[in-house]
Formats: sequence, C-alpha cells, structure tokens
Amino acid sequence: MENNKRPLAVCLVSGGLDSCVTAAFAKEECEVAFVHVNYGQRTQQRELEAFNKIADYYQVEKRLVVDIGYLKKIGGSALTDTSIDVPQDTLSTNGIPITYVPFRNAHLISIATSWAEVIGAQFIYIGATEVDFSGYPDCRRSFFDAMELAIHEGTRPETNIKIRTPIIHMGKKEVVEAGARLGAPLELTWSCYKDEDLACGRCDSCLLRLKGFKEAGLKDPIPYKADKENRGETSI
Amino acid sequence: MENNKRPLAVCLVSGGLDSCVTAAFAKEECEVAFVHVNYGQRTQQRELEAFNKIADYYQVEKRLVVDIGYLKKIGGSALTDTSIDVPQDTLSTNGIPITYVPFRNAHLISIATSWAEVIGAQFIYIGATEVDFSGYPDCRRSFFDAMELAIHEGTRPETNIKIRTPIIHMGKKEVVEAGARLGAPLELTWSCYKDEDLACGRCDSCLLRLKGFKEAGLKDPIPYKADKENRGETSI
Repeated sequence: MENNKRPLAVCLVSGGLDSCVTAAFAKEECEVAFVHVNYGQRTQQRELEAFNKIADYYQVEKRLVVDIGYLKKIGGSALTDTSIDVPQDTLSTNGIPITYVPFRNAHLISIATSWAEVIGAQFIYIGATEVDFSGYPDCRRSFFDAMELAIHEGTRPETNIKIRTPIIHMGKKEVVEAGARLGAPLELTWSCYKDEDLACGRCDSCLLRLKGFKEAGLKDPIPYKADKENRGETSI
Repeated sequence: MENNKRPLAVCLVSGGLDSCVTAAFAKEECEVAFVHVNYGQRTQQRELEAFNKIADYYQVEKRLVVDIGYLKKIGGSALTDTSIDVPQDTLSTNGIPITYVPFRNAHLISIATSWAEVIGAQFIYIGATEVDFSGYPDCRRSFFDAMELAIHEGTRPETNIKIRTPIIHMGKKEVVEAGARLGAPLELTWSCYKDEDLACGRCDSCLLRLKGFKEAGLKDPIPYKADKENRGETSI
C-alpha cells in the first residue's frame, strides 16, 4: 500500500540495470514518477520497452518520455554516431570512453528538474556510478553536487530538489547484489549498447554487466547472443 | 576579416533583442557559432526566422537548431502552455512571472555545452539579464556560476568552457544603447511573446522592449500592431 505522506521523487529510468536498481532504492522511501529519455542511441527502442516494463512492474502512473534526438545531431560519441564503432571485447580502463556522450547527464538532470518543479517532486534519482565506468566525467558526484547548486539557484525559491545517487559508489557486483536484495526486476532490464534482439555480450556495457552478475554469484536472467550460439542456434 | 586565432564561442540566439546584442558582444572578441532552441513557445516560427536573419547578417556558418518541445509537455508556463494566458498591459514587478519556464536556461546551457565540447568552443554566450525580468531565477549570474562549475566537473578534463553573460547587469535601455553602439541588427529581432505577424505591444516582453527604446531615445525599428491601428489600418 502507498503512503500518501511519502515524498515524491522523479526517477531517471533508462531501462538498464543501474537505473532499475536505483528506482528500487527510490521506491523504498518515495512515491515515484519515471522519466525516460531517448537521445538517438542505437538501442533506443529496446531501452524504451525495458522502461515501460519496469514502470509496469512498479505500477508507476506518472511517466514522461522525452526525446532529445538533437544529441545525435551534435554527435561526438559512439553511442549516438553510427560512424564511430562501439568497442568490442575490451573494457575501457583509462581515459574517457568513446561512448561518452558530451555532457549528457546535464540534459537528463535538467529534464528531471523541470518536471520535478512542475509536479512538486523533492528528489531526483539517477543511476550514475563513479566506479567501473569512471571514465564518464558527468557520472561523478562532484558533477551532481554542482547541478544541485544550479537547481537551487535556478528554480523558484520554494522549490527544493535534491539529487540522489544511491549507487554512485557501487561496482556492478554491488549493484547486482542490491538489486537482488531489493527485489528489483533485473530480468526486465536492457544494458547492451549495440543490439536490440539478444544482448551482444561483447560491448563495454554487456561485459561489465556479465562480470557483475558473475562476481555476485548470480545468473544474469536476460538472454545473450553467445548463449544461443553455444546451444548451436543461429544468431541474428 | 576574420582572425583565425580568435577563440570560438557558442552563442545562444533566440532571435530576441537581448540575444542579438549578446551575439554582437561575442563577435567583438570571438568567432561565433549560433545555436537556436525551439521549446514549443507560442512564437516559435517567428523567432526561428529572426535567428536565421541575424545569423545571415553576421555570416555565421556553424548553426545548430534544436527542438526541446518536451518542455511543452512538461508545461507549467504561460509561454508553453496555451491554457495559461500571457499577461497583457502590465509589467510583472514582483514574484516569479507566469511566463517562467521551469529551469529552461539549464536546458539551453546543456545544449550549448555539448555542442561546444564537440566543436571545441571555449565560451558560451547567453543574453540573460538579472535586471527588469529579475523574476526569472535561472537568469541570475549565481545560476550561471553553478552551471559553469557543473560544466567543469561534467566534461572532459581538457574541456574548458566559460559562460559569458555580457548584458546580465543591463536594463533594457542599456541593452538598446549597447546594440546601437555595436551595430547589432535590432531591426531583425523579435521579442513579442504572443504574436508572430506584428508585435502585440502589450505583453511583458513588448512593454519592456518599447520602454527600453524610449528611454534610450531611439525608435524601435520593428512594426507593432498599435502602429497599424493608429494609422487606421486593420490589425490581424
């Protein structure tokens, strides 16, 4: 049963593992509103499908889907520019990954803030993590602290919105463990940067996810291309 | 003649008086790239037309037009929600004006920053002013300072982008005077919040603009509905 006195939170839900577990954290303390942002990434349709499945699972009524396809026009990332290849079979270990979308999280926080101010939400939840993918500068807590200050300065005096980043210090193993503990529907999530039918199992995002499940001693419930190939079936 | 050693600046150009004069300031010191943002405002087409005319005037090659129509979906402002009336014949003097679009300038700065990072621009110019329309919280320098910090924290280590707000302490009179001094094409600008054919002369934005020209002792070069009515012609 929902308690009406719980604060309202806007959760940024991409449909991936991290945002699903972050939403599970939000649900522990808040009423939730889910926002999903398409930004011209390769696996846009599959991520939107995962978003809606997770929102259905949590019976979320307030949903907002916005399109910032202009990030594709701006380019500069393998995630939005199809002329740049998504790296395979190798985890980026230093420097800024080629999948960095310039200042993307500022767009996400701005969208969540505008909506939060209109619907009266007190918190924004975002599934950023400084660990593993530490190459993304806009995933650091110091960035969210600065955005929180910008929200304080740039919204109505009576508006008071804080940015919560519950998994920011977790590695993928801890994220998987937290998801399992909170009963997050990990089977509904989608992480692959490259494919939409079966996860490729080879991009940065798949490799990290698989490593996280393995280290947590759990089986990843989503299907992978390699599984099918191992069973002698034809991969698409 | 252009000097190739001048730094590159991304100018946010709405097509209004303030952004036109701000672009004129940018041109004094930098090579410029112009970005225009449609956000579902009532006078979207007319503002885009003004943007292109001003860009042509300054012979700007790098132009980016992005659409953030989702702000209309989020609502909460008379500028984007047609069920809320735009006030007429009265200048808002205290509180947050009903035309405040929640956290709008954070979206504009985020867009300008992503583009600036990709094209290697060092500055973002925005025509915000704390004076006159001081009711908009996201027009204060303290907000831009926080966003500048967020840019520092949230972009690549080698990226160094500063936000310039040359007219932030100017009233409309000073903006008009600066525009005249810098040779800005004020006749190409559009400020009216309400109409697209002839400026209404009655909304907040028109009243402020007319007051600015009057105080500067200059005639506003754009046509107003009232002018036509005064001449006995039929207004549309």
